[in-house]
Amino acid sequence: MNKFMAPLILTVIVSLAIAFPGAAQALGDKELLESAKEYFEPLPGKPEFKRDNPGSKAKIELGKALYFEKRLSSSNVFSCNSCHDLALGGADNSSFSIGHKWKKGGRNAPTVFNASLHLAQFWDGRAKDVEHQAGMPVLNPVEMNATEEMVLERLGSIPEYVKMFANAFPGEKPSLTYKNVAKAIGAFERTLLTPSRFDQFLAGKLDAMTKGEKEGLKLFIDTNCVICHNGATVGGLAYQKFGVFKKPDFLTDNGRFDVTKDKNDMYVFKVPSLRNIELTYPYFNNGAVWDLKEAVKIMADVQLGEQLSDQDAGKIVVFLKSLTGDKPKIELPTLPPATVSTSRPDTD
Amino acid sequence: MNKFMAPLILTVIVSLAIAFPGAAQALGDKELLESAKEYFEPLPGKPEFKRDNPGSKAKIELGKALYFEKRLSSSNVFSCNSCHDLALGGADNSSFSIGHKWKKGGRNAPTVFNASLHLAQFWDGRAKDVEHQAGMPVLNPVEMNATEEMVLERLGSIPEYVKMFANAFPGEKPSLTYKNVAKAIGAFERTLLTPSRFDQFLAGKLDAMTKGEKEGLKLFIDTNCVICHNGATVGGLAYQKFGVFKKPDFLTDNGRFDVTKDKNDMYVFKVPSLRNIELTYPYFNNGAVWDLKEAVKIMADVQLGEQLSDQDAGKIVVFLKSLTGDKPKIELPTLPPATVSTSRPDTD
Repeated sequence: MNKFMAPLILTVIVSLAIAFPGAAQALGDKELLESAKEYFEPLPGKPEFKRDNPGSKAKIELGKALYFEKRLSSSNVFSCNSCHDLALGGADNSSFSIGHKWKKGGRNAPTVFNASLHLAQFWDGRAKDVEHQAGMPVLNPVEMNATEEMVLERLGSIPEYVKMFANAFPGEKPSLTYKNVAKAIGAFERTLLTPSRFDQFLAGKLDAMTKGEKEGLKLFIDTNCVICHNGATVGGLAYQKFGVFKKPDFLTDNGRFDVTKDKNDMYVFKVPSLRNIELTYPYFNNGAVWDLKEAVKIMADVQLGEQLSDQDAGKIVVFLKSLTGDKPKIELPTLPPATVSTSRPDTD
Repeated sequence: MNKFMAPLILTVIVSLAIAFPGAAQALGDKELLESAKEYFEPLPGKPEFKRDNPGSKAKIELGKALYFEKRLSSSNVFSCNSCHDLALGGADNSSFSIGHKWKKGGRNAPTVFNASLHLAQFWDGRAKDVEHQAGMPVLNPVEMNATEEMVLERLGSIPEYVKMFANAFPGEKPSLTYKNVAKAIGAFERTLLTPSRFDQFLAGKLDAMTKGEKEGLKLFIDTNCVICHNGATVGGLAYQKFGVFKKPDFLTDNGRFDVTKDKNDMYVFKVPSLRNIELTYPYFNNGAVWDLKEAVKIMADVQLGEQLSDQDAGKIVVFLKSLTGDKPKIELPTLPPATVSTSRPDTD
């Protein structure tokens, strides 16, 4: 988003909130589906790769290996999967992740599932895509604490990895570069899509969702949550000020302001995707809230100026759980052994 | 082993070392096979379960989930797989593992692959089997730092786990007990067998090993490494003093003495299995040595009083790499989400 657009967008959103108080009050599943299709679309049926990083079997396999590769951290303790656990919701269910030497990050780890479809990466959007993002926690002193040199030295000392890079990036000399480490991980991450029954509903299968889930969806639309949480990822496609109507008392993070230094970006964050939201507690940029129903009520209050009843928030939660999707089957990779020359973990 | 037998066994081993200086000098692959079969046997074709912990699909699936379950640690940072990484050699390739609050363990993490076949667990044999072992790192303050109460509270607060325990331990009330947590993990670990080309050779397929590997095997037998490293696991089946001929200068660990308080157990450890030894560097109880060839030379020196040439140690290493096996395919589990009542990670 162009930084000058933030105030305009805010105004538009507030206007929308006033103009669309009950956008989907029409009764019946068919009407609900038609209404839902105005805001949502199904997840793509297959991964979407970037033109400058096409997906290949060799590259995705390499990216998967690197995703589980603890030797990308200086201590050999952390891999991407440490904080973005594919056995859980692609996150770590802590308010702040623990990294090198038990240091803590400053924002809640977002899920990697479906993240490739977002408009940008990180809560503040400081990485433009998953390829850009993937190389950053590796180098962060409070996360994996590596250097580019260390990563290239370690991988370069392992003949199987050298071969895997040559196969994944044919024709590139050298093929083992830090940029390609991040590209391979990014390509793998693009395969991490989690379609759910909601997608079947959007595709026209009216009974794919339960009555309660459909009631919740209708309420989600009518409450105007869809202003921000829309598209295939039900969020993740726009920036928004946290606290349009009221600043949450737990908010101390400047958000995107720290990236752009534009005062209109103060407290602005990427709208989180609600795909798998059931699995990605605790909620908000600082993981302050653990109960999804409470999070829904806070959002209605501070973003839309709506006081949701416990019952209505509960109905929306029932809908949100229909966004818990089927993860791709992930077979644990077999990582190649180091050699005598590979640098040893720093465990001090 | 009965603790009074240690001095006797030591005497027998030293006598064997003198009496069998070249037990397999007969030439030819068939003769080598016959000789090898005196010391080794193939890994079992399927997991061996204990009578009091029979394997079932439900129990193994539960055990796999728990093996990857970071919520068994107080911080939600560590699972069994953290230090016994199934994507690597079932260990962590650090001299000492890092645990809760960046504390370090005092012994090198041994591999979980094939460990169920060992005579006992841990370097000092203080757990009688994998079921006994599995519950211990969870409670260790320098590892996962949990309590039994915490584990039962967390798992008990997650309805899917309650169901999984009921299915894995039918008829038991309660089925969710700390003992059953360890039993399920143990049952899963019993499936972690890694047959290699060495097993095919032992089964009669003479060309399953290369010429170099067979030369190394012959030298391994002739050098009397087989006195301790024998059986299906090529070790893991006996205790032995580290430093029969000479105390290694890096040895400061009392070993099994700290378990039995018997002075004959000073510096006595379980003989490590050499299955997948290529993958489980660094070597020895304290991970002091990273180069397998160097480890082989040290062992020949301190255990057998043999000075191996670089060339001969290299030949043995060629054989040892034939023990790198095929891991079972492991699909990452899908772990159930916590509930609002589940206790939160302690990340202080």
